[in-house]
Amino acid sequence: MDERTKIVLGESDIPRHWYNVVPDLPAPPPPPLHPATHNPVGPQDLSGLFPPELIAQEMSADRYIDIPDAVLDVYRLWRPTPLYRARRLERALGTPARIYYKYEGGSPAGSHKPNTAVPQAYYNSIAGTERLTTETGAGQWGSSLAFACAQFGLDCEVWMVRASYAQKPHRATLMRTWGAKVHPSPSSLTAAGANVLAVDPDSPGSLGIAISEAVEAAGAAPNTRYALGSVLNHVLLHQTVIGQEALAQFAAAGERAPDLIVGCTGGGSNFAGLFLPFLREKLAGRADPVIRAVEPAACPTFTRGEYTYDFGDAGGLTPLLKMYTLGHDFIPDPVHAGGLRYHGMSPLLSHIYHLGLMEAVAKPQRECFAAAVEFARTEGIVPAPEPAHALAAVIEEARRCAESDTEKVLLTALCGHGHFDMAAYDLYLSGEMTDFELAQDRIDAALTRVPAVD
Amino acid sequence: MDERTKIVLGESDIPRHWYNVVPDLPAPPPPPLHPATHNPVGPQDLSGLFPPELIAQEMSADRYIDIPDAVLDVYRLWRPTPLYRARRLERALGTPARIYYKYEGGSPAGSHKPNTAVPQAYYNSIAGTERLTTETGAGQWGSSLAFACAQFGLDCEVWMVRASYAQKPHRATLMRTWGAKVHPSPSSLTAAGANVLAVDPDSPGSLGIAISEAVEAAGAAPNTRYALGSVLNHVLLHQTVIGQEALAQFAAAGERAPDLIVGCTGGGSNFAGLFLPFLREKLAGRADPVIRAVEPAACPTFTRGEYTYDFGDAGGLTPLLKMYTLGHDFIPDPVHAGGLRYHGMSPLLSHIYHLGLMEAVAKPQRECFAAAVEFARTEGIVPAPEPAHALAAVIEEARRCAESDTEKVLLTALCGHGHFDMAAYDLYLSGEMTDFELAQDRIDAALTRVPAVD
Repeated sequence: MDERTKIVLGESDIPRHWYNVVPDLPAPPPPPLHPATHNPVGPQDLSGLFPPELIAQEMSADRYIDIPDAVLDVYRLWRPTPLYRARRLERALGTPARIYYKYEGGSPAGSHKPNTAVPQAYYNSIAGTERLTTETGAGQWGSSLAFACAQFGLDCEVWMVRASYAQKPHRATLMRTWGAKVHPSPSSLTAAGANVLAVDPDSPGSLGIAISEAVEAAGAAPNTRYALGSVLNHVLLHQTVIGQEALAQFAAAGERAPDLIVGCTGGGSNFAGLFLPFLREKLAGRADPVIRAVEPAACPTFTRGEYTYDFGDAGGLTPLLKMYTLGHDFIPDPVHAGGLRYHGMSPLLSHIYHLGLMEAVAKPQRECFAAAVEFARTEGIVPAPEPAHALAAVIEEARRCAESDTEKVLLTALCGHGHFDMAAYDLYLSGEMTDFELAQDRIDAALTRVPAVD
Repeated sequence: MDERTKIVLGESDIPRHWYNVVPDLPAPPPPPLHPATHNPVGPQDLSGLFPPELIAQEMSADRYIDIPDAVLDVYRLWRPTPLYRARRLERALGTPARIYYKYEGGSPAGSHKPNTAVPQAYYNSIAGTERLTTETGAGQWGSSLAFACAQFGLDCEVWMVRASYAQKPHRATLMRTWGAKVHPSPSSLTAAGANVLAVDPDSPGSLGIAISEAVEAAGAAPNTRYALGSVLNHVLLHQTVIGQEALAQFAAAGERAPDLIVGCTGGGSNFAGLFLPFLREKLAGRADPVIRAVEPAACPTFTRGEYTYDFGDAGGLTPLLKMYTLGHDFIPDPVHAGGLRYHGMSPLLSHIYHLGLMEAVAKPQRECFAAAVEFARTEGIVPAPEPAHALAAVIEEARRCAESDTEKVLLTALCGHGHFDMAAYDLYLSGEMTDFELAQDRIDAALTRVPAVD
């Protein structure tokens, strides 16, 4: 087998299409419903928010969708991304497992998010959009959209959760470096924000409030649309470049199909991007990987949530989505993996999980940071807190392989670096980081407020 | 010619040796002198500080020095690095110039520094060193050495200039994540630090003080040695992997030799790493690039310094080095390119400059940040403040090419990303960054304190 540390492809190996898993699934995913009528949502219901091409992708039954040349041209700035064999980590663990990680932290924004930010900005630009609005929590998505908008000459306006805005000023500066405007949310620029501030002038904000502000701002101005960084089908679709490249890299390395694929899930797009092309192989009977999602114990959507129709946002403004949810007004404890603090889950991944095609585990954050530090000291790369969850599960499995002397092939998604998360590392290294206990009654209470759908 | 955005090599293309320019130069560089006797320094004078292999490399007359397998194995984590064609920047500038940049920001520490940190840690490990000490200013070097020591099981102890330690806590956390101990300097752990604190308990520290502390700590403990991140011959030697790869990438792209090579210079190792292999081609008559160093106007060593023997540190403890210097106790104004705030210059580059084989310009920092923002919005990557100096000179040249309709080939060293420098970007974007005027009498005064050598 291949002796390389990393498998690198050339620009001509960037996938030419995105992969849509929907036509390959044994049953179609339940449609989103209009919150008032409970009828399935149609393209016209979304036309104020998204450009036509993205709405078509959101509802597409086509297996493959061509990637436009203008998008490929930007992907070339960092794609294909390397597939690493974690030889040093394997040695440190004394495991016979072969551990591979697909690294997305080399993108300009330092994560997988530009994979969808770029096509979203592109399709908006050809549809006459002049300005995109969005929300961001820790800032990974906002900075990625800022970068993408700079590439296509769009204005970008980001509502950033006020608590993060105060704690992570450097992410806001990164967005401004790429030309975006950044507002702490709640802001007085929208009615949604002003209403919150009227009640609580010191509100720390929430992702739900920021979504409401960005959506309102998109509706209120001409040639302005809204962009979302996870959860939706078209976002997951764009991320499938990751898994398609990984498949080619496994072939180039002469490695067999992975026995286990592990990734962290918040909205679900990063892990879906890696595993959906492998799920295609599994559904076609050409491989049989276990697919394991890792979520924070403080926000255990798959492992302790309910599969039901719920709102995508805290304020209850979005269509109803059939998904694993902890209740749309569930507020997760402040774990440092901000990208995993979402009450719901991608409806597509929820469907796949419900079909029994994948499994899930939940991890407390100190175990994840311990894994991240072990990874950094062996492999060099300092991971973001989100993929640290996946690494905790990988290291757990690799140790099991050592105990049972089993030669498994493990693949994980290292979706971003942790250069903007050093305050969290400092807390961990100084012994001051806490895990959170999540009492069942908090989940139960939030679930009672999920709307009833027949 | 090649249509690619980036030229990527495989692991088998990592250079197998470092290139030593000394035997190819028309005259040998003047030797370092013992500060007391003014006699040339011999290997025995350095044996307390460095392991035998590094001392041999420091004084070597061999053209090529093999890279050990253990070092290559770590280089594989991020090498070869990509060579980019800056197509988007070219379009934005409307220039007929073809702009290439060699990007070193994909290393674990985010800069070129691990290229030498790794072999330094390795050679120490095989010489029985158990602990390495060093100083760091902004933290690029300290974090790179921390990473390298983690790879070879060495303890790492870093004295970080107190002002930076307070302003840039995240760099110290990065070092600790890789297992290093970090002390703000001046510290009470050394006599050198304690002496400073006795006079001024609130001393902000300086690189000179931090060097004294790290050197003293290395001498005081068993199996402990010291490591330096720039200036010395063996450091420049290790960086030549950059230029050797770039030569191979130019050939792979079917591109002619560059007409101009541009890089920033503080101690000189990053730019030397890129251009020395091209200088070999120039000296052999196979190419004729202009080689242009860019330094901060606040620390204009080449352009306003004197070529003379001077101390490498502020305290006057090191051997005397023949170099361009502003005087060993010259304190540059606090420009954000911390890596370029050094009073002296690599003796080897100083010699090459004195021979007329390269030229230099100085740039004020706002012009550099303007260039960095223009680069980020077109090419995506947010540069560190140091290579922003090189980009300012590249953009200046590309605009000249546009005016004169000249199709030049430009190559520059993008030696690191700016993810840890967002406070400086914030200052620039908010319009609050200042340039500094450097009065000639400050240089003249510092130069009067340079020791007289016959």
